[in-house]
Formats: sequence, structure tokens, C-alpha cells
Amino acid sequence: AAGSSKPQVARAKVLTIDTMNPTVKNAKYAVRGPIVARAAELERELNEGMKKPFDEVIKANIGDAHAMGQQPITFFRQFNAIIHADFYNALAICSYPELLNDSTFPEDAKSRAYRILQSCGGNSMGSYSASQGIDSVRQDVARYIERRDGGVPSDPDNIFLTTGACDGIMTMLKLLVCGEGPTRTGIMIPIPHYPMYSATLVELAAVQVNYYLNEEKCWSVDISELKRALDEARHYCNPRALCIVNPGNPTSQVETRQCIEDVIRFAAKERLFLMADEVYQDNVYGHGCRFHSFKTVLFEMGPEYSNTMELVSFHSTSKGYMGECGFRGGYMEVINMDDEVKAELTKLLSVRLCSPVPGQALVDLVFNPPQPGEPSYDNFIKERTAILSALEEKAKLTEQVLNTVPGISCNPVQGAMFCFPRITIPEKAMIEATEQGQQPDVFYCMKMLEEAGICVIPGSGFGQKEGTYHFRMTILPPIDKLQILLNKVKEFHQKFTQKYS
Amino acid sequence: AAGSSKPQVARAKVLTIDTMNPTVKNAKYAVRGPIVARAAELERELNEGMKKPFDEVIKANIGDAHAMGQQPITFFRQFNAIIHADFYNALAICSYPELLNDSTFPEDAKSRAYRILQSCGGNSMGSYSASQGIDSVRQDVARYIERRDGGVPSDPDNIFLTTGACDGIMTMLKLLVCGEGPTRTGIMIPIPHYPMYSATLVELAAVQVNYYLNEEKCWSVDISELKRALDEARHYCNPRALCIVNPGNPTSQVETRQCIEDVIRFAAKERLFLMADEVYQDNVYGHGCRFHSFKTVLFEMGPEYSNTMELVSFHSTSKGYMGECGFRGGYMEVINMDDEVKAELTKLLSVRLCSPVPGQALVDLVFNPPQPGEPSYDNFIKERTAILSALEEKAKLTEQVLNTVPGISCNPVQGAMFCFPRITIPEKAMIEATEQGQQPDVFYCMKMLEEAGICVIPGSGFGQKEGTYHFRMTILPPIDKLQILLNKVKEFHQKFTQKYS
Repeated sequence: AAGSSKPQVARAKVLTIDTMNPTVKNAKYAVRGPIVARAAELERELNEGMKKPFDEVIKANIGDAHAMGQQPITFFRQFNAIIHADFYNALAICSYPELLNDSTFPEDAKSRAYRILQSCGGNSMGSYSASQGIDSVRQDVARYIERRDGGVPSDPDNIFLTTGACDGIMTMLKLLVCGEGPTRTGIMIPIPHYPMYSATLVELAAVQVNYYLNEEKCWSVDISELKRALDEARHYCNPRALCIVNPGNPTSQVETRQCIEDVIRFAAKERLFLMADEVYQDNVYGHGCRFHSFKTVLFEMGPEYSNTMELVSFHSTSKGYMGECGFRGGYMEVINMDDEVKAELTKLLSVRLCSPVPGQALVDLVFNPPQPGEPSYDNFIKERTAILSALEEKAKLTEQVLNTVPGISCNPVQGAMFCFPRITIPEKAMIEATEQGQQPDVFYCMKMLEEAGICVIPGSGFGQKEGTYHFRMTILPPIDKLQILLNKVKEFHQKFTQKYS
Repeated sequence: AAGSSKPQVARAKVLTIDTMNPTVKNAKYAVRGPIVARAAELERELNEGMKKPFDEVIKANIGDAHAMGQQPITFFRQFNAIIHADFYNALAICSYPELLNDSTFPEDAKSRAYRILQSCGGNSMGSYSASQGIDSVRQDVARYIERRDGGVPSDPDNIFLTTGACDGIMTMLKLLVCGEGPTRTGIMIPIPHYPMYSATLVELAAVQVNYYLNEEKCWSVDISELKRALDEARHYCNPRALCIVNPGNPTSQVETRQCIEDVIRFAAKERLFLMADEVYQDNVYGHGCRFHSFKTVLFEMGPEYSNTMELVSFHSTSKGYMGECGFRGGYMEVINMDDEVKAELTKLLSVRLCSPVPGQALVDLVFNPPQPGEPSYDNFIKERTAILSALEEKAKLTEQVLNTVPGISCNPVQGAMFCFPRITIPEKAMIEATEQGQQPDVFYCMKMLEEAGICVIPGSGFGQKEGTYHFRMTILPPIDKLQILLNKVKEFHQKFTQKYS
């Protein structure tokens, strides 16, 4: 019977924009949105020989160090070359023992490769790992955290390896969401914020509770503002978690120890689960700034806090000095998490089987780097120092150049990889933007792309105080290219201001 | 003020099993469930010297070829060694040019590594890729599909690279879900089925619509059963998509061309979005069986179908002859997807930035393997043939041995990597299971683990017809080990039957 009947000739589609999942449709993600799409188009047009007011598109929209020309750390790639040859298997099948005997590969990279492969099923990176991640990698991460936090203990059972930090954050948010209507879970996030947070909250149909960072105080977290946001939110949802991004993205602030202590006290008092996004912990440049992990501060506050406060901290291999975004390596450490919830977390991760094993191997190496006395140590320190010093220089240059432009004001780039300058948009430009159905900062950034070939992300993609406008630009390009980029931004802003005045 | 107030001493946790996301809690995933957890415990106990009735735990629960001792294909690992050294960067920093000049690495592996790295930002695998995946990889996948499907065109714009096939399936299901109450999206899935489907549907709060595979006809899909399931489901939900797994998991059937044509006609008539999970397409062993892709059949049915039917097909690098699960490489091809929905799909993927680049590189290689005349070709064909022949032999051995056991009956293992035998459980065992609060097949599998050290997954984890019992066991162990494994299963089943008769 089914065989004889014919479908309509112009069959309407099952899945259309009107019949798809509305939460997916409603999610916004500006970091890879229409401006970035237009930048790719412009690149194609340039390649095809079309004339533009610029010779190349500078993609200053994303924190991707390698794409900006940063060289990978040698040690990581040596290790990778070895481990991806599957050392043991290479040995077994005798197909290229050269690699094993190759004296250009240092012993410390080889010994780490041994250790990882021994922890893999069948001694192969091609096997699934445990859903929580490879045991020996989690052990190395725990030891790294202990060194970082001056001896505060870390339990490998509390470490979960993730597909980049995003995956961990999304997974934790998913665990937290429940309830309906006025008891629906609310999640407090900073404004401005990295839009993966808001996109995920929309997808989960959770309530986004905004707290504003204080631009006047270098984008720091303000406890009274947290209190305001929380009290208002309690009228319409059940706020259960507080997300802090330190160092900040896009805002680059590095929180003080005092601020972190105050946040922990606030979260304890208000019964909030703390989520600390600390992926930029190695990227601190600001004068007098230092990274304090939430965990250290929590433990310094004594057992009253350290025995009870639920905290999860996220980290990845994508940022720092290594910038290995493509491997999608990351971890989260959960503190004081309920045991039954931890079992549910493991189950949730297991449906996706495991995070990519090459990324897990890289996590191991990044958090178990060459030590003094090992053959790779000197070169490793040299490369790492060079990258971090260059970033510090670029952070200072960016702040300095942008603040010479009338109509642009930029907080110090204390950490992370971005500046988030505030811009003054002339009245006439606002009117034209409205006529074109664009937000003023989107209009501004689109013009910057079309006229100067520079791709940055409008502040509205991150959220900003009503009536203020910003853009996010990475500081990652090599210093000479960054200088050119900043001059182009300056020139563009002056022309734009002139045109619309 | 916040600083002076103290939290309660024994602060209750914010996140508990009772206050977590109920959809996560309700999701079941037996493939990595309590039996697997107990198997890991038993391994630890054996390592600690505890006496057990067996010397080792055989993990026959999951389709992980490398963990079962299968050697990786040499060519893939040579390529991986090169690409993970970041060829270009290695060259640039001159730290180990040996690898470049190393004659043990064949030219075809080197040239493919060049091509991939040229498509990466900054010529580094450490860069994020486009969210949809690296362009050149998607081109190679499209060309592979065209070769596979005898010239049916494939557009790289329709290829999306994913983190294993699961990620693609979950993403597509997420797009499809909408509506409330009786208009909530229903998704038709086979019973038995791979439980990632049901776990994801629970998480998405979609309605799972079960259709039963026909065990008497070698687990084939039955159109009248599809119709029954659909008609019943229409009373309480809005069924919008039909998932077909071919070759089947855990049921290993290979659908005939006629069956696929009938399924397409059915889906067209009933306005269902077709999801074809074809990750086992290289794993076909059954007498007279051949893999037919849904796409080829769709195009052979003419424009009336091929111009309108919405179809998505999933594939990965984890199965086949390569078995590289740990890399989490995969792709999906979407056919006739609405353009606006495609844009939303890209946005959804972009929130996670991109799938792991090492996995993308492996996808490229698997679907663009050595060709006749290239230096690696002969060895590649030799290795691939050896693995696939061994699998075929193991499929036959499994069926044959299991069918010699009274109380076990096993359909031919036509494809994939599993058998799913039906078992007779004596009345007394059922009673004891009930007393212990376990399902009879869980009770059976737990006993098999405790007494014989064999870890298999109970049929209830996949769904089975009321009153029937099964287990899923991989056929992947090396043939001598598989023979031992099958004899142990036989012996266990006989003892178990005797004990409870």
C-alpha cells in the first residue's frame, strides 16, 4: 500500500525555520555571527580580484593564537608527533622505529608519551577513554592544581576532562536547570559576557540573570550589583548559580583577591552554586595584577567555606601561552559536589562517550610541562616567556594607542586576550543605523569591516549598559601587525566620526 | 554587610539529586552503566590481588577496536605523526627537520598533511576551524560520497564535520524538537536501539516513538510496524522524524535495497524527516548482504523523491576497519535541508566553536585513503583487508558457537560489530532477579560478570520486546580470544541454566 501512493510534487519541508526548535532559533552567538560571515565573503571577493579599500581582512574577532601566526610550543608538538604515531603500536608493527630512535625527539617528550599511551585502551589514542577522562591525565591535572594553589589538595576524582572549556560549562549549566515558571532556574552571568553563556541558557530555557560589571572600575565585579541583580531576579525565577569569568572575556579585568573573597561570601550567604571560568589564568599582564584561583581563596577562608561551598572551575588548552584551540582540550574541577550528582554528571558525559583523546593528551602535557633538569626545560621556558612577554607588550600598546583616539576609551587590558573599548557613536550614525534596522554598534563594526577590512565584534553581542557602545578586538596579532591594526582602527574611527558629525 | 554574615555551618548543597535537571536524571545509558562500573571495580580488585573465579575481565560491552587489540592502520598513524608535528611550523622553526626528510614517511602521507595544514588557520592544527569544518576536508568527504554512491553528486556545503557521529545525531535531534503536549515532537527509533538515542530524547524532552525490529526476520525493519507505531503515536505527539540504523546496532542487520526504498516511500508519504545512521557502512559480512546508502536509493527513485525528501546521513571514523574512536571524528551530510535551517545548524555548531581538528584531519584521511599507484596503497589495502576479513570470520564464529548453546539463539551477524543473542532465563532466576530489584537480563549479565569475568550489556539497555531477553556482545576481540570468550559464555549459560532449573 505504501508503495503505490505518491508524495505531493512540491512537498513542503518537514523542518523549516518556523517548525524548528525555537530555543535554538532564539539563541544568539555574535562571535561567529553575520559580521564574521561577511568577513569571509570579503576574503573570497578579494581572492577573486575584486577591488576593496584594503588588501586583506584582519580577523581580530576571536582569540585564536595560532591563526594569528603564533608558533606552537615546540615541546607540545614533539610530544604530539610521537603520541600520534602511537609509540607502542609503531614499535609493535615495526613500521617506523626511526621515530623512536630519533635523537631530535627529547627523552622527556618520549617518556610522557609512554605514560599516556600506557593509560589508553590497547595502548592506542584511537580507543575511547573513560567518560571522565584518562586516569593518568586527571592525576597530572590534580597535581598541577596543587602546585598552582600552593598545596591545597586536589582529588583526581574531582577532575573531569572536557572538549574545551565550553563543553564543561554547558554540561554544568545543563545539570543545574530545573523548575517551571517562577521556580525556573536562574543563572547569574556578567554583562558584558562571552555569548556562549547566553546562547546555552536560551537553549536550556533557563533564566539569564544579568549583573553588570563596573566599567568605571576597570570592569570589576561589584557585590552590591550582584545583590541588586539577585533580589530582582528572585521575583521571577529561582537563581541557583553565579558565573564569574576571571580574567574577564571580553572585558579583560583580573579580579582582586578581596573581590573573590567577597564573591564567595556572597554566594555562600545567598546559596548560589559558584562557576568560575578561569581559562585565562595564565594571561595576566596588568600592573599589580595577579591571578587568584577561586579554589585557593575558598580554602584560605577556612573549613566553614571550604567544606561546604559548591564550586566548579573551568580551564582549557586553548588560551594561555599555548593557544592550542583546535585540539579542544579542557578540564573542570568540581569541589563539594554531591556524590549522586557527580554520578549523574559522569552519566551525562558518557552519552557522548568521551572527550577527544588527542585533546586529553595535550591537557596532560600542558599541565605537566618540562621541569628543571629535563632536556626540554630551557627551550620550553624560553618559548613560553617570549609569548607571554609579547602578549603583555601588546596589551599595553593596545590600551595606549586606543586611548589616543577622541571618542574611544579603553580600560587597561589586565589579562586575557581582548580589549573592549567604549566608543562614542555620533547621533547621525545612530539614525542611519536605525533606518537600516541595525544596532548602532553593529552598524559601526560593519562599516569598519567594509571600509578598513577589520573584523571585530560589536559590544551588543556581549551585552552592554543601555546607551553605551563597545567592540571586542583581540590583541593576538604579531606586534607589528597589531600596530598597523590599531592605526587602522584609529583612522577608521576618525573618518567615521567626521562623516557622521 | 555581606562580609559580616556567616553561612550555616552544615550548609545544604545547592545541587542535589532532587534539585538537578530531571531530564538528565531520567536519561538512561546502559552502555556505560552499572555493569560497566562493576567491571572496572572487579579489574581493580584483581589488580589488588583479590581472588576471583577468573584471571581477567573481558570487556565485550563496547565497539572499541583498538582497545580490543586491533592495530591502527599504518598510513593513518604516519599521517598523524606528520600532521601533529605541524609540518609547516616544524619547518619554520627548524626544530626537527628529520621528520620532513625521513624517508620512512611516505610521500602520499606527507602530501595529504600539507593539504590539511594549508587549510588550517596559521597552518596549525592548533587553530579553531570554521564551525562547519575545514573546507578541504568537507570537499574530500563529498568526493568520497560521490565515489561510494556511483556518481550521485555531493555538495561540500551539505557536509558538516562533527565530534563523532553522536554529536551530529544529537544536534539534528535538537533542531527537530518543538511543540508542547500533544504537538510535542515525536522521534521514531528502532527497538532494540543504541541508547544514545533514547538518552538524548529524554534530555530534549522529545517523545520517543518505538518501532520494533523483526527478530524473526533477522531484525529487519518492517513497514507495517512503522505504520502501527506512527498511527498510535499520532494520538499523543507530533512524529516528525524517522531514525534508521543501517547496519544495525546492537542488532547487526543489513537492510535490503527494497526495504530502504519502502522506508523512503513511507517517510515521504507520512512527511517524516529521515535520519540514516550509517556508521557501520564498511562493516558488512552477511551472506548476500550489501550496504546501500539511503542517499543512493533516494536518487535512484527519481527527482520526485530526490528533490524533496529531507535526509541526513551520519558517518564516523570510529567504526569500519579503522576503529579510531578516540579521535572523535565524524561527519553528516544533509540533503534537501531548508536553507534557513542550515544557517541555524551552523550557528548551533558555532557555539561549541568547532569539532576537534585532529579528528577532522583523520576524517580527511579515512575518506581520502591511498589510491592505486601511491606508495602506501598496497600496504593500506593489505591491512584493511586483513581487518575486514578477520571481522567477517569473527561474525560467523560468533553466530555459530552461540547457536550451539541450548537457550541461546543468535541471528546471523550481518554487519556492524556486535551480536545480540536472545537468551532463555529460567523461571527461578526471574524470581530471584525480582527479589533483588533487578530486571532478569541485568541479573543474568551481572552474574556473567561476577562468575565468568565477562562484561556484556543487558538487552533492556537497548529495549526489547516484552518478555524477551538478550545481551549485546562485541565481536572485536582477536579470534583466539573471541573463541575463549564464546566458550566462557557457553559454559556460564549452561551453569546458570542448571543452577536455576
